[in-house]
Formats: sequence, C-alpha cells, structure tokens
Amino acid sequence: MRNTTPKAAPLSDEFAAGGGLLHRRAFLRSGTVLATSMAAAGLTMREAVAADGPEWMTKQGAPLRPYGMPSPFEKHVERAVLLPFGPVADGTGVALTPLQHLRGTITPNGLHFERSHNGVPQIDPAKHRFMIHGMVKNPLEFSIESLLRYPMVSTVCFIECAGNSFFNSNLFSKAMQVPVGHLHGLVSAAEWTGVRLSTLLEETGADVDAKWLLAEGADAAGMSRSIPMEKALDDVIVALYQNGERIRPEQGYPMRLVLPGYEGNMNVKWLRRIKVLNQPTYTKDETSKYTDRRPNGKSNLFTYTMDAKSTITHPATGLKMQGPGVYEISGLAWSGHGAVKRVEISADGGNSWADAHLEEPVHSRSLTRFRMLWNWDGKPTTLQSRTIDEKGNTQPTRAKWSRSYGPGQLNHCNAIQSFTINPDGSIANVFI
Amino acid sequence: MRNTTPKAAPLSDEFAAGGGLLHRRAFLRSGTVLATSMAAAGLTMREAVAADGPEWMTKQGAPLRPYGMPSPFEKHVERAVLLPFGPVADGTGVALTPLQHLRGTITPNGLHFERSHNGVPQIDPAKHRFMIHGMVKNPLEFSIESLLRYPMVSTVCFIECAGNSFFNSNLFSKAMQVPVGHLHGLVSAAEWTGVRLSTLLEETGADVDAKWLLAEGADAAGMSRSIPMEKALDDVIVALYQNGERIRPEQGYPMRLVLPGYEGNMNVKWLRRIKVLNQPTYTKDETSKYTDRRPNGKSNLFTYTMDAKSTITHPATGLKMQGPGVYEISGLAWSGHGAVKRVEISADGGNSWADAHLEEPVHSRSLTRFRMLWNWDGKPTTLQSRTIDEKGNTQPTRAKWSRSYGPGQLNHCNAIQSFTINPDGSIANVFI
Repeated sequence: MRNTTPKAAPLSDEFAAGGGLLHRRAFLRSGTVLATSMAAAGLTMREAVAADGPEWMTKQGAPLRPYGMPSPFEKHVERAVLLPFGPVADGTGVALTPLQHLRGTITPNGLHFERSHNGVPQIDPAKHRFMIHGMVKNPLEFSIESLLRYPMVSTVCFIECAGNSFFNSNLFSKAMQVPVGHLHGLVSAAEWTGVRLSTLLEETGADVDAKWLLAEGADAAGMSRSIPMEKALDDVIVALYQNGERIRPEQGYPMRLVLPGYEGNMNVKWLRRIKVLNQPTYTKDETSKYTDRRPNGKSNLFTYTMDAKSTITHPATGLKMQGPGVYEISGLAWSGHGAVKRVEISADGGNSWADAHLEEPVHSRSLTRFRMLWNWDGKPTTLQSRTIDEKGNTQPTRAKWSRSYGPGQLNHCNAIQSFTINPDGSIANVFI
Repeated sequence: MRNTTPKAAPLSDEFAAGGGLLHRRAFLRSGTVLATSMAAAGLTMREAVAADGPEWMTKQGAPLRPYGMPSPFEKHVERAVLLPFGPVADGTGVALTPLQHLRGTITPNGLHFERSHNGVPQIDPAKHRFMIHGMVKNPLEFSIESLLRYPMVSTVCFIECAGNSFFNSNLFSKAMQVPVGHLHGLVSAAEWTGVRLSTLLEETGADVDAKWLLAEGADAAGMSRSIPMEKALDDVIVALYQNGERIRPEQGYPMRLVLPGYEGNMNVKWLRRIKVLNQPTYTKDETSKYTDRRPNGKSNLFTYTMDAKSTITHPATGLKMQGPGVYEISGLAWSGHGAVKRVEISADGGNSWADAHLEEPVHSRSLTRFRMLWNWDGKPTTLQSRTIDEKGNTQPTRAKWSRSYGPGQLNHCNAIQSFTINPDGSIANVFI
C-alpha cells in the first residue's frame, strides 16, 4: 500500500479568511483522503487483514492492574521541568504541561503544570491541620477527616501561573525555539472538588467586613498570599479532589485553595492557615515576586485576574508539518474574566481573521478548545489566534503588550502568539 | 485540643423528608461544628501555630517531576481487580473504579474501570492500522498519524459495563458485603476526544443504507460487536484521547470506539476494523455473552442503552460513619437515554423521598453528582437513591428488577441500591 498525501483542492467559496482558512464543511468536500486506499494498492480486504494480522492478537495480553499508566509508547509526553531562575534548589521552578501532545480541555492529573518555591512537601494527611484565625469569633482547626464531612461543590476551571508565557515576555528580546508546551504550558484545567471557603468562614464567625485574608502553605517556602474577602466569599474552594481523586502532592496534597480566574500562586497549595485581616500582608511572595513592572520603573501590586488569552496547539512548535494539504488548526482559549465568547484565527500573519469553532461546553474561566480547517499551500505563513471573552477583553500584539510594561516584565503576558510555518514543515515561534 | 463530634440540632422546618434528610441551608443553621475550637481548647492561635509547626516546613521538599502520581498516603485508592468467572487467565476480568474514594464526576485516567477478555495488548502505534471495509466504495486503511490530522470533537460521557452491579444481580441471592466500588464501579466518566466515525464512513463512501457495522478489537480475544448504522452516524467517536492525554493501554490504546450511553463492550477497544454490513454478525461476544435472560429461559439480544441508574457513594459500603450528626449524602447518577433530570433520596428505607441537589453542569449521558444534607440520629436506617432521567425513565426496586429477568441474569441491573446504616457506624449492602 502506498501513503497518499494529496493536495486538497477546496472550492473558492469555502475559504473563511486568507492563508487557506476553510469553513467547517470543507474537509469532506475537498476530496482530501489522508488514509491509504486499499483498492488503489491492489489489495483485497481479505489480503489486507491477513497481511496485517498484528502480533499482539496472537498472545494473551497483560493482566488487569489496580492503577493505570500511559502506554510506554507515550513516554515522551511529559512535563518539561525548568529551573530558569539562576542557581536554585531543584525544588524551585516549573514543570510545564506538554500542550502539543494533548487534545480536549481537561488536563490529566499527571500532566497538570507545577510551580514550586521550595519543593513538594510530603504531608501526612492524618497530621495536617488547617486553621482559620484572626478577626473571627471562634478560631477553628480542621482535620482532613472533618473537612471530608462538609458539603462539597465542584468547578471545572483553569489555573494559570502569572509567569506563563515568559518566553514571550520582556525577559527575552528574541523568540526562543521551544515547544508550545514550554511557551504556554503553565496553564492547565481540571475539575476541582472541595468545600466552599465561605462555608468555613461562616462557621468560624469571621468578620466578613474585614477586607483581606492571608493564606499560607505548609511548604518549606511558607508560600503565602493576600486574598480579598470579596473573592473568598464569592467562589473560592478549599479543594481536596482533582479530576475525581485526591489532589496530588505537587498540586497541594492534602488540600489547596482554588480561586477561579485568579493568578496561579494565589491558589495556595498545601494550605495550612487563613488569617482574617483588615489589610493585605505584603508577603515576600507578592512584593519581591509576582508584581508587574511599569515602563517608569515602578511596580504594580496585586494583578489578580488572568487576562483573555489563547494559543494554537496544533500545528505549533514541537510538532512538524506533514507537507501541504488540509489540517485542523486546534488550540486552547481562556479568560479569568469569564467565558470565552469568540476565538479568531489568522493564517496570513494578522492581515485577515476568521472565527474558529468553539467546542461545547464552554465553561466560564476554564479552557475552551477551538478549531478550524486550514489548507496549507506549502508556502511560508504565520498562524495566530486571539480570544475575545464575554466582557469584551481581547489580546494585544506582542509589540503592544511589551511597550505597556517595563524592561524584564515577566508576568501576565497575554500577547498574541505567532507561529511561522516554513516550507520545509518546521514551525517557529516569532516575535511580531 | 479535643475533637468535637457534636450532635446537630436542626430546626423541624428544615427536614426535607423522613430519616433526617435536610434542606440545603440547614448545615450552618444547625450550629454543627465539625472542626476543633482552639478557644475551647485553651490555646491562642500563636501557641497553636507554634505547637503545630509541621516537620515538612523545616526542610526542602521533593523536586519537580515530569509525570505526577498520587500521594503515597493514597495507595489504598486503587481499582479492585476481580476475576470472578471461574478458572481463567489473569487478563480476563474486571478492575473496578473505587467510587467510595472519589468525588466530583470525572474519573481520573488511572482509575477508569477496565474490562478485558484476554488481557491488554501492547500495541505499537506506528504499526497499528484501522480499516473500514465491506459495503463501501473505497475501503481505507488509517494509520494513527493520518487519524491525528482529522477534525476532532470531544464529549464528556460515562461508559458502563453491561455487567455493572452484578453483585446485586440474579447471580446472588444474598447481598455481598463489599465496598460500593465493587458494587457499582464498572462505570466511569471521562472527556473523550477523537474523530467522528461518521466522518470516516463518509470518506470511505460507506453505504449508509446498510444497517449494521461490525467493529473488532486487536486484542487476543478479537472482541467484536455489531453496531447499528444509525448510532454510528449519530454520535460515535473513534477516540484517541481520554481526559486530554492519549488513551491508556487498558482503555484501548491507541484507539477505541466511544458510543455515548451504549453498553460498555460496544465501545470496542484497540479498534482494528469496521466492516459495513446489511445485518448483525452475531459474534461470540453478543451471543454467548452480553445477552439478557428472560424469565421463560430464552434470551434477549442487543440491549444497547444503559438504563437510568444511581448510587450513593458517601456514606456507603467501604466507609464507616463517625457517629451521629450531620453528613452530606453524595452520589452519582446517570442514564444512557439522556440527561439526569432528578435524583430522589430516601433515608427511611423507601417510605419517603426528597429531591437531591444536582451539581452543574449536567451533561447528557455522563455522570451527575448529587448531594443532600442528612442528620443521622444514630439509629439503624436504610439509604436509597433513584434517578429520573429527562425521558422519564427511573429505577425499579431490586425485587421488581429481579422478577423481570431469569435466574442468573447478570447484565443491565439498574435496581435501586439499599445501604443499611447500623448503630455501630458500619454500613451494609441489603436486598429489599
């Protein structure tokens, strides 16, 4: 049998925008066949079945097992561990979700991104205690056993590190050639289940007129952040489960905060205590880090909400084109402000844009998968995507984003990502 | 500090039904405190923080890692492997999802139930081929590489083995005392992503007036089932991804069929070929197995749709009560016919019923989490749940279900589950 890599020939009325972007039904009407025709190969089905009879049908397979793992053939699908901040301990850094190898919108638990400030503590759940104190009537200490008896809620949402997309930030003057998982893989999504923080605050008789909380983790860094009471009473969860099972160590076992839409490190892992206060605490983790540099050299504190954002994941850096023809452009869009309303795609470097299809259901403040058909003619071109959320927020060009911050600005980079497709099928991250 | 296990004292107007079922807001108004009061223990917060300073805050934690795993303290959360069908190879049996240890609605990939008929083949994706042949214009053979270029869709749905709940079926005359994961853990849910089967059938020029397909797996059992063309053209997916990552070996790596709402083994794993036909094939897997025994000794073939069903998972067998007081009853409901519309709970053995709260979003043909507050007075009582789906289907009592089938009927048991709570806090599966 021969492999066919036909050039598609879409009708002219099937183009949605420049650079070969196609309307949804164009795939079949284009006559594109990506499979191998057995008739053309001169084989009958009987011959093909016999010739193909795979060895694994001839012997008993592996036994059933108590906990499943991916196929050995998928060993390359792993988080990239980067310790990019100078000479530091191996517990300080990031592990990024390999977006180029994933489809759908849920991130499997083994591949949810990880950011740790002094390693992952191994916490005995029987000994762990969570305290609420400060401006409260009745300071309380919760064991895991007692928390498991409270009413629970679930929410599907993304968590994104404030430093996501740092390869495109003002730290770099030149585009780095790394996979899209390195570029934007500090965002992941899961179904989080736990107890509403408001339930626990109500039980302690917290002074809900107090405007601030301090949340502290039980890691060696004592990672801590100030959280507005308004958010705490709205939708914050003390999460115990991720995608059904107990949260994993690097995600904060035995418990973490989940603040839908807010920057990653406010979702405090290994949660140890919450202190109710009248003002922010200005912890080391929100003053020396996680601030935003202005062009005038000063810094902004407290940028909570992660902005409207998107990235194409297929095709993207870390993958290679298989030659000219029809492809599905696929990617992820999100916004901390609410639901993604539209995603636009350009296949001609931003000259023209077309609306992508959004996969249902579109959850507020979660990852949304978008997709669009594309006929690549084999010439060099640049792919881009931009999200418009339900509040009207969208993404700036990298040049515009870069100008709005000071030198070395790392966090909250939501600039439009640009991938150049080269005639040899290679794909490059470019700054435009 | 002392542990408080207070008895709740709900107001009488907060009861939703007999046996202590409460309306939603009753939790806080009951004055129930499950945590430990530090004031009552005579400790200031400063003392408590110092006294509690956990050892894991005093040393650097573990380094970041490429693929995460659950905490060592959660080793007991695993699938139960059962080989209950006589002297068979260790690749023939089931591995059940431990429902009593999970919350939310997504099943993590490591714990999705598994049913294999002759072990799990280790398939090299570079060598795997999927064929469509039979009544088609152009028989085609698809490599994984080519399939990955097709337009993809995602669906969140449950898959349930036809034999789920066999401990409550006519195989047994007496209730077995096993955890709820053994009772009902042959159901799981995931976000499945792949190519619509209809897209591939259209590309082969399949005769869509042909009424049947034969789908065959590449395992040593050659597991194969007949599938109606109508379903194939409706919503069947050739799935390549499960919760974002490539499907795991025991779920059919590198590809499987997903037929939302249809019985488990029709979701053919390790999918090797589909033959378009004018009639069902009556394979060994749908004649000697997966048929339903009538009271008159004959059998029904082809019961596709999994019926309306539910089970309480907390509290349930495999867990233990912590004494009288307020609990959240939590469980899972589903129906192959569509979305769950209501779930009713009884805490008095079926004498009175109250509507549980359904967690949003309620996906059609997926798992829905329900929950309800309950004040257990410490006396013996029996908990039950029953689903009503959007088509009006509901669940029979076990006695009624049992009478409607013949002796030894194993499959499609959707009888109401009954758990008896004993005064000593133990929980038993009962037949009523």
